[in-house]
Amino acid sequence: MVRKPEKIKVIPLGGLNEIGKNMMAFEYMDDIIVVDCGMSFPEDEMLGIDIVIPDITYLIKNKDKVRGIVLTHGHEDHIGALPYVLKKIDVPIYGTKLTLGLVENKLKEHKLSSSVHKEVVKPGNVIKLGEFEVEFIKTSHSIADAVCFAINTPLGTIVHTGDFKIDYTPIDGEPIDLHRLAELGKKGVLLLLADSTNVERQGYTMSEKTVGVTFENIFRNATQRIIVATFASNVHRVQQIVDAAYKFNRKISVSGRSMVNVVNVAMELGYLNVPEDILIDINDIKKYPDNEVVVITTGSQGEPMSALSRMASGEHRKLEIQQGDMVIISATPIPGNEKTVSRVINQLFEKGANVIYEALADVHVSGHACQEELKLMHSLIKPKYFIPVHGEYRHLKQHAKLAENLGMPSDHIFTIENGQCVEIAKESAKICGNVQSGKILVDGLGVGDVGNIVLRDRKHLSEDGLMVVVVTITKENGQVASGPDIISRGFVYVRESEVLMDEARTVVRNALQVCQTNGVREWATLKSAIRDSLKGFLYEKTKRSPMILPIIMEV
Amino acid sequence: MVRKPEKIKVIPLGGLNEIGKNMMAFEYMDDIIVVDCGMSFPEDEMLGIDIVIPDITYLIKNKDKVRGIVLTHGHEDHIGALPYVLKKIDVPIYGTKLTLGLVENKLKEHKLSSSVHKEVVKPGNVIKLGEFEVEFIKTSHSIADAVCFAINTPLGTIVHTGDFKIDYTPIDGEPIDLHRLAELGKKGVLLLLADSTNVERQGYTMSEKTVGVTFENIFRNATQRIIVATFASNVHRVQQIVDAAYKFNRKISVSGRSMVNVVNVAMELGYLNVPEDILIDINDIKKYPDNEVVVITTGSQGEPMSALSRMASGEHRKLEIQQGDMVIISATPIPGNEKTVSRVINQLFEKGANVIYEALADVHVSGHACQEELKLMHSLIKPKYFIPVHGEYRHLKQHAKLAENLGMPSDHIFTIENGQCVEIAKESAKICGNVQSGKILVDGLGVGDVGNIVLRDRKHLSEDGLMVVVVTITKENGQVASGPDIISRGFVYVRESEVLMDEARTVVRNALQVCQTNGVREWATLKSAIRDSLKGFLYEKTKRSPMILPIIMEV
Repeated sequence: MVRKPEKIKVIPLGGLNEIGKNMMAFEYMDDIIVVDCGMSFPEDEMLGIDIVIPDITYLIKNKDKVRGIVLTHGHEDHIGALPYVLKKIDVPIYGTKLTLGLVENKLKEHKLSSSVHKEVVKPGNVIKLGEFEVEFIKTSHSIADAVCFAINTPLGTIVHTGDFKIDYTPIDGEPIDLHRLAELGKKGVLLLLADSTNVERQGYTMSEKTVGVTFENIFRNATQRIIVATFASNVHRVQQIVDAAYKFNRKISVSGRSMVNVVNVAMELGYLNVPEDILIDINDIKKYPDNEVVVITTGSQGEPMSALSRMASGEHRKLEIQQGDMVIISATPIPGNEKTVSRVINQLFEKGANVIYEALADVHVSGHACQEELKLMHSLIKPKYFIPVHGEYRHLKQHAKLAENLGMPSDHIFTIENGQCVEIAKESAKICGNVQSGKILVDGLGVGDVGNIVLRDRKHLSEDGLMVVVVTITKENGQVASGPDIISRGFVYVRESEVLMDEARTVVRNALQVCQTNGVREWATLKSAIRDSLKGFLYEKTKRSPMILPIIMEV
Repeated sequence: MVRKPEKIKVIPLGGLNEIGKNMMAFEYMDDIIVVDCGMSFPEDEMLGIDIVIPDITYLIKNKDKVRGIVLTHGHEDHIGALPYVLKKIDVPIYGTKLTLGLVENKLKEHKLSSSVHKEVVKPGNVIKLGEFEVEFIKTSHSIADAVCFAINTPLGTIVHTGDFKIDYTPIDGEPIDLHRLAELGKKGVLLLLADSTNVERQGYTMSEKTVGVTFENIFRNATQRIIVATFASNVHRVQQIVDAAYKFNRKISVSGRSMVNVVNVAMELGYLNVPEDILIDINDIKKYPDNEVVVITTGSQGEPMSALSRMASGEHRKLEIQQGDMVIISATPIPGNEKTVSRVINQLFEKGANVIYEALADVHVSGHACQEELKLMHSLIKPKYFIPVHGEYRHLKQHAKLAENLGMPSDHIFTIENGQCVEIAKESAKICGNVQSGKILVDGLGVGDVGNIVLRDRKHLSEDGLMVVVVTITKENGQVASGPDIISRGFVYVRESEVLMDEARTVVRNALQVCQTNGVREWATLKSAIRDSLKGFLYEKTKRSPMILPIIMEV
């Protein structure tokens, strides 16, 4: 009998050295399970790209081994790539009730709903996926129904925290299951993978409940309309807004597509408790006195198309900001969104609203564990090996240092990157080579068809525009039949630059003349001559380098 | 005898509802003086733009009245537009020694140095500009030699703080002149204009000296090379790095064009005290042991072409990051730069450097006054009227509120925008209409030639690229002679989309066929037919909308 190779392969497909697109696979013999399947937002230089998803070539190659995808919670950076991945590999997905409720919405949009096998798992329950046993353990995060996993394997237990914080007073009354985590730690944990997002922050993340206290104070003193923007998925935050509204006798209206979606799913599944008759249609808010209305809306990140942005810019069809409206932005800008959020705040102030944001009051708390919470997690779990996950390199590095400071030997900590695998045996662990991984860009219907060349062209076009030069030449003798015609876009305002354009035509004409005098007839050479002469001329005149597209037509 | 109209016009040309491009004019009878002349960086949607400067049409129209430009300090957002403005109006400029030293560098680049009248003014001195007397008063900021102004007018005194903080222990030993400000307040101040940048922050900004203490602690324990990145213009910060290097027997090398420039100017003018023999060439750092070297460099904002960014990406020609290098980023990211700074931090960590930044240690303090400092300024000056300056609307609004909370009547506070003038008389003040103002975009050599149409095209091109369609038709009968030829850039990777391009050609051919069948020969109609048919086809196939440029050539 052949002896089983006693090792587990940890295969990170996303979420390392980046924020978002979290996806981690574990392989043992003929079984693979995947934790989360997230998307990320494009970097600044990924012009025109909608979203970014993980490269799952490894899973496609091994699709017969993949037993399922288990989901920690319903945020986009943990479930957003599912529709794309499920089109490539047909595997069952497992998550808690709210998580799968949100997944369902997403699958419906992609017309995948009926074909995917989904299974709701309650915290405390265990599912068997090949040789893996995955236990769902209650945790706290900025979305309801979040879990972490204890993955039982023949070699030992792996704990994957997912995103978490330690909230002793969560809104749903069910704190993170510290007892179970302690129990697992006592029995012995082979490997811990833990959230690194807030590792640079000292101390503790405050409880979600503290935001409710701030809401109550604000609502108590408000004499006009209240508009609260927050993440649609933060069901507990929404619950606290509802509670404050109820307490101070205000009706609630919901605005913004994703907020409406999530509120509906959360109410349906029992995660959001809304008193009867308190919900009103946004078209009806004028029927109520200003001091009896609360609007819950999206747009806390200043997203240009969101409901709050449209209110701020006066483009919302149903709601116009009026003098004295109290607008609460219950969120903190995600890095990169500072300026768009600031713009919305400015516009709201200019319209006469009284805007309350994080700099002015405690209207937001993070969903991620700070240093002291991470220390508690490490201390309870006492893992043999540790892989920091969910973070840029700076975060992973600091998290590794934190583990070391807690006494873990540095060679038991693996600060790895996407695609870099770790092989774990009972008594040893090592980095064991790479699998294909990376960023797949989604642009419209195209998945992966926009690559570096297209992005480079978009960048060039975005900076200096373009100039198209068309010349027709005769088939017989290669003489210019018509043109050169020049068209530019994004370069200069043509009506004010007619002289420049006339000169440019002359430059091209002269360049072509030289070619003809020298008997040059190869199109490639003619195009080069056009490009080079024009490039030099334009740079000298404008210190700009538009893309130059010479087109030759033979007639 | 005609009685003088007893009023002063306050004309904001920049710095209101925005960060940067600070410029404020004051007009009394036939005299205009201007405080500062700054640039700002382009917004995200200003694709390809290098810098933004104020619209000074009002000054050009009244150029015979303009007596001079007085400068508070040498930061780009206060002096950066000078070369462009001085090409349009020929006026003398006044500033402290270091400020004019930095201006001189700038004018030389624009070959303006010899033609501009510059006059160095010492803090404590007064210059007469027409009916205005401008007193230079020592203040503290994140650059040496910063001043605020007391502007004496026939109607009373105007105080303009410029950028300031209250530092009781500044590096140069000369704190902000609180005595003079108190004296002015006691005598009576007509109008205060004050910095609003940090108005959202509670408490006090820490003294610059606290950063020196952090440096000493870090330097004391460092065993390898130290690289410190900071703003080139922060001469006091650089002084503290030099002091710490000297104390711990390290040589200093300077890297980055602007850092080299500023260090040279500051040493020459006596603002930077560098012990003899401590400076070494960057080419020579390998000649010294690692624990005897400090490199001072630019790039604390993650600017892609800066020295630190090039070190981080391995593209610096003179310095390669090595395992154990201590890199200190002594700055905080300006809003909008968070992601580029983060990228540099990640790259440095990946190269094995030990990176220290604001989240981890007190390696930076702000140059702007927080709430308690602003209260001190308002309380000392006790102005009759107040205009908050230097800030987005949210900041100006909060600053107005702060003044109100200190007891100022709200109708004595003017929260205005660029171009919106305030007329101040001895016993009254009111908003008095608008002058032309705005953002002039500088792109290469072009000043103001890139407008909304060009930017809109750049945005369109950046998101979906373009498709050029060329057709030649005969002069005689308007029949297609050759084409349609299709060229795309920034749309799809053509080699992988040959089918799509073939189909696109067929779509255009069919559209032209329909036109010919219907006897359509107008070029505008033909172009519309091409554009519309292709647009619909491409959107259906890809959910993208590239710019479509139909070109018709007649042969």
